[in-house]
Amino acid sequence: MNIVYFNGRYMPHNEVALSPDDRGFLFGDSVYEVVRWYGGFFFDMEGHVTRLRRSLGEIRIKWDDLDDFPKLAEELINRNSLGDGCSLVYIQVTRGAAPRYHAFPDPPVSPTVFAFARRHSMDTLLWERGVTIDIVPDPRWNRCDIKTTALLANILAYQNAHEAGHAEVCFIRDGVITEAGHSNIFFIINDTLYTHPESNRILSGITRRNVISLASENNITLAEEAVSADMLPYIHEAFITNTSGEITPVIKIGAQQVGDGIPGKITKKLQRLFRERVVSLGMSQQRGNNQGS
Amino acid sequence: MNIVYFNGRYMPHNEVALSPDDRGFLFGDSVYEVVRWYGGFFFDMEGHVTRLRRSLGEIRIKWDDLDDFPKLAEELINRNSLGDGCSLVYIQVTRGAAPRYHAFPDPPVSPTVFAFARRHSMDTLLWERGVTIDIVPDPRWNRCDIKTTALLANILAYQNAHEAGHAEVCFIRDGVITEAGHSNIFFIINDTLYTHPESNRILSGITRRNVISLASENNITLAEEAVSADMLPYIHEAFITNTSGEITPVIKIGAQQVGDGIPGKITKKLQRLFRERVVSLGMSQQRGNNQGS
Repeated sequence: MNIVYFNGRYMPHNEVALSPDDRGFLFGDSVYEVVRWYGGFFFDMEGHVTRLRRSLGEIRIKWDDLDDFPKLAEELINRNSLGDGCSLVYIQVTRGAAPRYHAFPDPPVSPTVFAFARRHSMDTLLWERGVTIDIVPDPRWNRCDIKTTALLANILAYQNAHEAGHAEVCFIRDGVITEAGHSNIFFIINDTLYTHPESNRILSGITRRNVISLASENNITLAEEAVSADMLPYIHEAFITNTSGEITPVIKIGAQQVGDGIPGKITKKLQRLFRERVVSLGMSQQRGNNQGS
Repeated sequence: MNIVYFNGRYMPHNEVALSPDDRGFLFGDSVYEVVRWYGGFFFDMEGHVTRLRRSLGEIRIKWDDLDDFPKLAEELINRNSLGDGCSLVYIQVTRGAAPRYHAFPDPPVSPTVFAFARRHSMDTLLWERGVTIDIVPDPRWNRCDIKTTALLANILAYQNAHEAGHAEVCFIRDGVITEAGHSNIFFIINDTLYTHPESNRILSGITRRNVISLASENNITLAEEAVSADMLPYIHEAFITNTSGEITPVIKIGAQQVGDGIPGKITKKLQRLFRERVVSLGMSQQRGNNQGS
């Protein structure tokens, strides 16, 4: 039975009764996170908690139990017997349920908190072969730095790309490539790694930040600079990053082949470094557990 | 007891159990309408049904019972004994409930349909005195013509304006004023009525369209042209329109007083014409009922 978390209780998924007055439902007035469990530990849980705190702060939702999220997430892993192997934990926090008016409820109501865990397996062939992605004008609002559930723009763009056989869609705004529907994007031009700087135009991805630190620790030159769409024909490598897919090589963007049309050498190096970081985190977790017992 | 409509059934509001897998909740993947009941009839129900059909089509949600919406709305009025006086009926249609993946569920699932009715009273003093509104850069996505529930951008902008004592917030994009958080906006400059043309940057308001037809029938010169924010000091009158508030004069926009700082004569004329249209629709409805009996 699938056990989820809902407003302070663990319960079977089919017993959750969300109010139709929930502002997450009526307005997209909510934020979320997805964390990844690697058969024994969460990857960069601290990064996810920090980002969730920031998202909540930016839209002024007050959730007093935020610091309990790591415990909550592990409880969901345990209650669903997902301890072995890879899983994802999803958490969504809304402004709560109240009669429908645009203004925030006054006095405030309790936020709605919903979380679930599920098995996550990655098609690792995609890591080896790479994927093609679509490219379209950025349809989204001006606060892409907030991880909100008001995702319709992302959903529609991704669906079009998906139906055209692409694995993702990336966005152009004011001539530069910002990020993708649910991933960040990196480019390699002449051995330099480029990615859009943090701003209101991208989400500060947890995998993105880890890739940046791996590059810096391993003497890969990094420029947090936006890449112009006009540069696409001159790009040697590209990859997308997110929590569920880690680092996925991109071999074609729209009609434009990337470099030689196969995953590039810096991309493969970063994939390897990322896997090493995961393994090393697992080993230190293991040591921590042994010391604790 | 408050009776609402949920997925084919009328039921007490507190018995609605929305699935947390609903894509309206997880993604803002849904559209809505609000129609107004004037103690005996809905104002321009046909306009609302047409717009809901368009919204559903644009985001590719298939709801087979759309044509039953007028009957459903009236049933909610009757079951809640709201026949007399003014009320609003809200309806929201989502892509339905399915395990959380960005792609549309394949095969498709049944849409979720939720509707409620409630008493609506308008503070008519605002019609006489006018309101002040805030003005900010348009934070929204590029498909404001779709009446989606992914409204976080509108909510945040409106909340800021509300806390600063304003009744609404209007938006500037590329130098021109587009519309407001949940209303359209009109300006009068030298006896000509201006409003942003229909495009992806505004919602085609039902009240907006009725104001346009009233202007045309009453020899008020109309230009469906965007007004530059630079023109604000030269505007003689302004008003906002929506289903719940009809025509509300605007006497100040940000720091800029509008004209003489009181509701203007063309605004008042349009308010009167709009009320006459409502009364005349009520009378023709009355005749229809008498003929029918």
